[in-house]
Amino acid sequence: MAVGLSPPKQIRRIEGVNVATAAAEIRYPDRDDMLLLHLAEGSSVAAVFTQNKFCAAPVVLAKQNLAKDSPRALLINSGNANAGTGEAGLSNAIESCHLIAQGLNIRPTQVLPFSTGVIGEQLPMDRVSLGCEKLLSGVAVTDNDSDWMSAAESIMTTDTIAKAVSEQVEIEGRQVTITGIAKGSGMICPNMATLLSYVATDIEVDSAVLQEMLLDACGASFNRITVDSDTSTNDALVLVATGQNDLPCIDTIDSPNAKEFYKALERVLITLATAIIRDAEGATKFVKIKVLNGQSESDCEAIAYSVAHSPLVKTALFASDPNWGRLLMAVGKAEVNELDVGKIDLSINNLPLISQGQPAKAYTEEQGQAVFSEQEIEIDINLNAGQAAYHVWTSDLSDQYVSINADYRS
Amino acid sequence: MAVGLSPPKQIRRIEGVNVATAAAEIRYPDRDDMLLLHLAEGSSVAAVFTQNKFCAAPVVLAKQNLAKDSPRALLINSGNANAGTGEAGLSNAIESCHLIAQGLNIRPTQVLPFSTGVIGEQLPMDRVSLGCEKLLSGVAVTDNDSDWMSAAESIMTTDTIAKAVSEQVEIEGRQVTITGIAKGSGMICPNMATLLSYVATDIEVDSAVLQEMLLDACGASFNRITVDSDTSTNDALVLVATGQNDLPCIDTIDSPNAKEFYKALERVLITLATAIIRDAEGATKFVKIKVLNGQSESDCEAIAYSVAHSPLVKTALFASDPNWGRLLMAVGKAEVNELDVGKIDLSINNLPLISQGQPAKAYTEEQGQAVFSEQEIEIDINLNAGQAAYHVWTSDLSDQYVSINADYRS
Repeated sequence: MAVGLSPPKQIRRIEGVNVATAAAEIRYPDRDDMLLLHLAEGSSVAAVFTQNKFCAAPVVLAKQNLAKDSPRALLINSGNANAGTGEAGLSNAIESCHLIAQGLNIRPTQVLPFSTGVIGEQLPMDRVSLGCEKLLSGVAVTDNDSDWMSAAESIMTTDTIAKAVSEQVEIEGRQVTITGIAKGSGMICPNMATLLSYVATDIEVDSAVLQEMLLDACGASFNRITVDSDTSTNDALVLVATGQNDLPCIDTIDSPNAKEFYKALERVLITLATAIIRDAEGATKFVKIKVLNGQSESDCEAIAYSVAHSPLVKTALFASDPNWGRLLMAVGKAEVNELDVGKIDLSINNLPLISQGQPAKAYTEEQGQAVFSEQEIEIDINLNAGQAAYHVWTSDLSDQYVSINADYRS
Repeated sequence: MAVGLSPPKQIRRIEGVNVATAAAEIRYPDRDDMLLLHLAEGSSVAAVFTQNKFCAAPVVLAKQNLAKDSPRALLINSGNANAGTGEAGLSNAIESCHLIAQGLNIRPTQVLPFSTGVIGEQLPMDRVSLGCEKLLSGVAVTDNDSDWMSAAESIMTTDTIAKAVSEQVEIEGRQVTITGIAKGSGMICPNMATLLSYVATDIEVDSAVLQEMLLDACGASFNRITVDSDTSTNDALVLVATGQNDLPCIDTIDSPNAKEFYKALERVLITLATAIIRDAEGATKFVKIKVLNGQSESDCEAIAYSVAHSPLVKTALFASDPNWGRLLMAVGKAEVNELDVGKIDLSINNLPLISQGQPAKAYTEEQGQAVFSEQEIEIDINLNAGQAAYHVWTSDLSDQYVSINADYRS
């Protein structure tokens, strides 16, 4: 039921990233569920990880390896999160990295592992080993663009559609390509991190600059989405710059090349992040919540998330019921320092509902019904109190969200 | 579908409180939907109100009247919250108080108004006026105990069962009676306040002491419950002490009489607050979440609410699915300063699931299935890091919650 989301098209390969997928039957019987990205020597790698304190074994290991070595391979599996699995889980993650390192003739610390799926079950290592063998034999030079599509499909769990995007931008007269994939549909409220998403480019970027760009672009994209306020134990977003084109290295964040590249990167991340919301579990609506003219960005953010997380707002959106009283409730309960409700204007898809804290005079229930029935909804909350602003993207809450998550393991 | 909740029994009248209910057809066609509590002269009244900044017109007026006069009447209607109704809503609340004041020969500022129901619609004042007339003619001396039951029924909205309790305690050899009623089923996450609840006693208590006791008892009851994290615009809890028995006035919080009375009061509020959770919208489980041995009460509280608000924990509880990984996720995402996940023990109904942050060795899926299938669930999260503790009560999240709230206005 993805809202306004078509299958990806024109996904381009990135010089310096070899892609292989394999079916290991970790959970799903008849599809690829493992992915290997083999990175050219000299690639820069930036990453952000979940802030959940119960982070999964692969997250612990990926952070350690990234801190101590230069990554040459990303190993991902779906169907099992390897989270809440204790020391056995960590051993399994280490063993997987060893298998790949051996096959690629690199150090085990040059492999970053990632997992997504059910929490609390050990990885079936016999099947994972077999999967690693298949990946290694498949990871020849990528010679067609569709491999990234297979990659996007291999990391899906409750996603109903693969999420991938390519963007090209001209810098100094040369094409720079950015390609990214993502997965995620529930347990979505990234906190300074994200779900599983892998983005690569062929331009050379200094590691520190790459990390700074990733944090900025993540703040404008993945850190502004929420399905259900639940932050996963496994979220990770990785950005690779292979430096395989002839452009000079981007080694400062302020140069014209850096700015041009950053704009394209941000577009890619916003496309992937909003694709996750469009494909949110049980979603029937795609909702942007904008809070404008607040006294501080943090106040605007608190109000935006208070509305985005409210089950009563989300069920009203699902029902296409113009129950705008619930919007007032959700604004009013936000934990902010100062809120003068008498100044607030609120509109949905440009239809004024509240003016200066009171029901808008011209509003009719019929008009409300019409805008609440749309699939794409923008809620503008104007605090008329300052210059700050914030926006988030979210979905509605349907009976299907409940049934998906009541049935997920069975 | 109330979980383990029977109709109230043995509800006792309170000397000094006359009760009347009436059918005004504000929203419901064939039941009482208005309530008048007429208080004896000299009664002390304490109250707490919603912290939602978009508070309803009756809340604004009740706070004002309480600050400037001694209340003699509480006027309540269900079916319409008179919230988000602007100046017209405030005028309607004032007019209702005038009607009652005239009939009882008291000042309008001695009437406290309360409303609950749909947000964003004006009160139908013709029907409210008629209701007030009926209330005034019905408010003779209460001479049977069942009037409080009618009162509990008249304030219901999506509640499936009336909530009322009486408690008697012997102080200085005399019976002191406390009787309370409450309503609420969704939009439940009181913040230093509660839903609609009215509690009265016949002992005399100094107003300041009464307010202090109410805050303490509310902190142990209504401020520890959540259905859906949504804080209503209309929450109010009122405690009346009529002083109609012969006991001396409780004028300090430390006296033996005060302590005896407080214990009974706290039991009454906990009974009412947990009744609201047992009757939560769509609830099939009654869940207590205890966080033990934390470094601070606020850390314990943050973790308890993080688990209680998690849609993924709540849907797993609904499905009786021992998906304990979601419990780890919800503990780990809580915003606390310090959390050593390697120290955490977690058990459900005394079945250890996690020991020292790792899956408990003896745990089997079969045992997990058995405890998750129970209707009454206690989740104990032992942080093993300090002396502080906190607990909250909550419900599960079912498809019925979604359908109730997708259909509420239609």
